[in-house]
Amino acid sequence: MVLKSFVDVHPDSHFPIQNLPFGVFRPTEASPARPGVAIGDYVLDLSAVSSAGLFDGPILKDSDCFCQPNLNKFLALGRPAWKEARVTLQKILSSTEPVLRDNVALREKSLFPMSELEMLLPTAIGDYTDFFSSLHHAKNCGTIFRGPQNPVPLNWFHLPIAYHGRASSIVVSGTDIIRPRGQGHPSGNSPPYFGPTQKLDFELEMAAVVGPGNELGKPIEVNDAAEHIFGLVLMNDWSARDIQAWEYVPLGPFLGKSFGTTISPWIVTLDALEPFACAAPEQDPKPLPYLAEKVSKNYDIALEVHITPSGQKDSSVVTRSNFKNLYWTLTQQLAHHTINGCNLRPGDLLGTGTISGPEPESLGCLLELTWNGQNALLLNGITRKFLEDGDEVTITGVCKGEEYNVGFGTCSGKVAPAPCP
Amino acid sequence: MVLKSFVDVHPDSHFPIQNLPFGVFRPTEASPARPGVAIGDYVLDLSAVSSAGLFDGPILKDSDCFCQPNLNKFLALGRPAWKEARVTLQKILSSTEPVLRDNVALREKSLFPMSELEMLLPTAIGDYTDFFSSLHHAKNCGTIFRGPQNPVPLNWFHLPIAYHGRASSIVVSGTDIIRPRGQGHPSGNSPPYFGPTQKLDFELEMAAVVGPGNELGKPIEVNDAAEHIFGLVLMNDWSARDIQAWEYVPLGPFLGKSFGTTISPWIVTLDALEPFACAAPEQDPKPLPYLAEKVSKNYDIALEVHITPSGQKDSSVVTRSNFKNLYWTLTQQLAHHTINGCNLRPGDLLGTGTISGPEPESLGCLLELTWNGQNALLLNGITRKFLEDGDEVTITGVCKGEEYNVGFGTCSGKVAPAPCP
Ligand SMILES: [Ca+2]
Ligand SMILES: [Ca+2]
Ligand SMILES: [Mg+2]
Ligand SMILES: [Mg+2]
Ligand code: NI
Repeated sequence: MVLKSFVDVHPDSHFPIQNLPFGVFRPTEASPARPGVAIGDYVLDLSAVSSAGLFDGPILKDSDCFCQPNLNKFLALGRPAWKEARVTLQKILSSTEPVLRDNVALREKSLFPMSELEMLLPTAIGDYTDFFSSLHHAKNCGTIFRGPQNPVPLNWFHLPIAYHGRASSIVVSGTDIIRPRGQGHPSGNSPPYFGPTQKLDFELEMAAVVGPGNELGKPIEVNDAAEHIFGLVLMNDWSARDIQAWEYVPLGPFLGKSFGTTISPWIVTLDALEPFACAAPEQDPKPLPYLAEKVSKNYDIALEVHITPSGQKDSSVVTRSNFKNLYWTLTQQLAHHTINGCNLRPGDLLGTGTISGPEPESLGCLLELTWNGQNALLLNGITRKFLEDGDEVTITGVCKGEEYNVGFGTCSGKVAPAPCP
Repeated sequence: MVLKSFVDVHPDSHFPIQNLPFGVFRPTEASPARPGVAIGDYVLDLSAVSSAGLFDGPILKDSDCFCQPNLNKFLALGRPAWKEARVTLQKILSSTEPVLRDNVALREKSLFPMSELEMLLPTAIGDYTDFFSSLHHAKNCGTIFRGPQNPVPLNWFHLPIAYHGRASSIVVSGTDIIRPRGQGHPSGNSPPYFGPTQKLDFELEMAAVVGPGNELGKPIEVNDAAEHIFGLVLMNDWSARDIQAWEYVPLGPFLGKSFGTTISPWIVTLDALEPFACAAPEQDPKPLPYLAEKVSKNYDIALEVHITPSGQKDSSVVTRSNFKNLYWTLTQQLAHHTINGCNLRPGDLLGTGTISGPEPESLGCLLELTWNGQNALLLNGITRKFLEDGDEVTITGVCKGEEYNVGFGTCSGKVAPAPCP
């Protein structure tokens, strides 16, 4: 029989008792931030659960990790603590367990309607890295930026290419994204354009949240790498294509991507995703030994991007993709990141890169969907080449099971106009 | 008459009363980290000065910014607080002021011999950015990596090119640097090399430490940018050239630089550097309005790199350069960084990029000095193309005045062998 919660959970909900994603929230603007898990349309306050003494396992019993304004301390404890928390929470939320179900006072102190509270960034992010792990995306971008001859550089097939992103401008879903100003690629011999970006784009991504991490100089072995990944979030790596095209040679993207990166508030754990694991694609050439894993896993996560054009009520789906379109796995990304001794810290974020699939309707950004603005998209009678002020972009992700879904909720942001000069 | 301290300061010292650079230290391994300023061969403990009530100005009187394990809270207060601290510290350290000079108990509690304590990272670094602001370096690297046709991309002259670096692996001077392993550029059609880097290099840089910073979406105007720079440190951006050459297309340097970046423990303030300000070079083409400053400043800071080869006692000078070789100013770098709305936070680090000058003996890294390993350097009878295990690299920087120096001390690190596979 399928595990059920005493909290009413709609069959379509992203947040059944099998999921229990972790986030950070505050019930009111004046109250302090604290960790919670989502259950149906409610959030269970983990600081309240902890204060009530319900975390009674050996690792969490005397820990103050849930009385913190972010999840970093809990993440640092590693998988045994994560498992213990999951076991405890599935127990106290289950329909057959009275400890919370029948304690009205505790329920009132610890269960908050999701619609009435504010979600915050779940972790303090020390460093944010963005990979480039979809071959379809790499091929399309390479063709657009550098032409059809060898669009994918040879190194791409040997290592999971990545760059360091900006940690300070990562924001939680719901935060407006202010259109950046900057220098755009000049046409021909004219001087570079300066002003609000004319090619504002989204990028459909997911990101791994790092657990314990490693000491400087001590790489993490690829077959141990999953022990260092707490879970996944949805991510929109907003991009200004004209700024990016002009600045990125030779040191990579900078201001074209550092003005804002949106993540979903809920971190879905690898434990919750495990039933939806699937084989990763065959890799040719064979990866070097430090990237060769005993089991190479992807996850079957259906992803969609919706745009609600400025002034409209209805959204249109512009992309349907899937996490399993990625060529390099999360564990290969993490092992590669540390092979030089680079240290990862709890809460670090590893973006997958834009998740494009092979079909035209599975492309993960407007750059690809409109082929750099050459072909407009039709959204309920409105056309778009790139994003306009007031447009809202929403990413959703869900693993569809036979008896329940494990979902990520949404990751959304609306475009606000550039500041006046 | 020149201001003098009651603390004995040798005329060659980097740390006279005119300097007073800020750092963080602990007297013993067991004692908590706290801010200090260098004076001669001593460090003045700012938590002790603060506890004694000697910061009596309006901003610092009731602040606990010096009772912190890093300088971030002090940096966030901005230039008025920095000026107030400087005035107070120059007063209480001066030869004519009895408050500290004649208080033996307080002197014993607050003045520590520099040789007996441990220096730590001065700030918690949220984000680290590395620029590319020396034209000589850009030209040489471009020629080596991409050939002699147009070695400097056109964008370089229009904007201060930069990329995001790794914050987690920034270490304080004196920390060993573990030789990274990774994939190196394949020769011809062979598969990529894997193993300890064969082209380990230093990069002579300096870095600006950010003060208050800005809110997301609110750029800092170039003529206000100096208000957001607390001071400068020396920096060695260790680089693995074979890893970098293979990975950096198209998203920029990643593992070739993320295994360690060393900074000097002392932040020399812009106020202390002001007497050594000089005009920045003419820029052609004229920068866009958002980068055009009323006064364009560099600083005359003499920089040297010394290498002590493994097993040797004596070091050799391999480079003599100067901060004033930079084309883009610190304030232009900072204004550019925020023009897209990207937020800077107190303690962020902005590296200048390798500071190469025009002369062959002023090149800021071995890549340039040996032309990618083609010509060996001779160090006291020992040859080097790249760094070997046990080599120690030390950067020094000093402004030489007629009556005193304002110096940075040293920034050094020794190469430790790669971990066994
Ligand atoms: Ca991206
Ligand atoms: Ca550098
Ligand atoms: Mg971004
Ligand atoms: Mg570095
Ligand atoms: Ni960072």
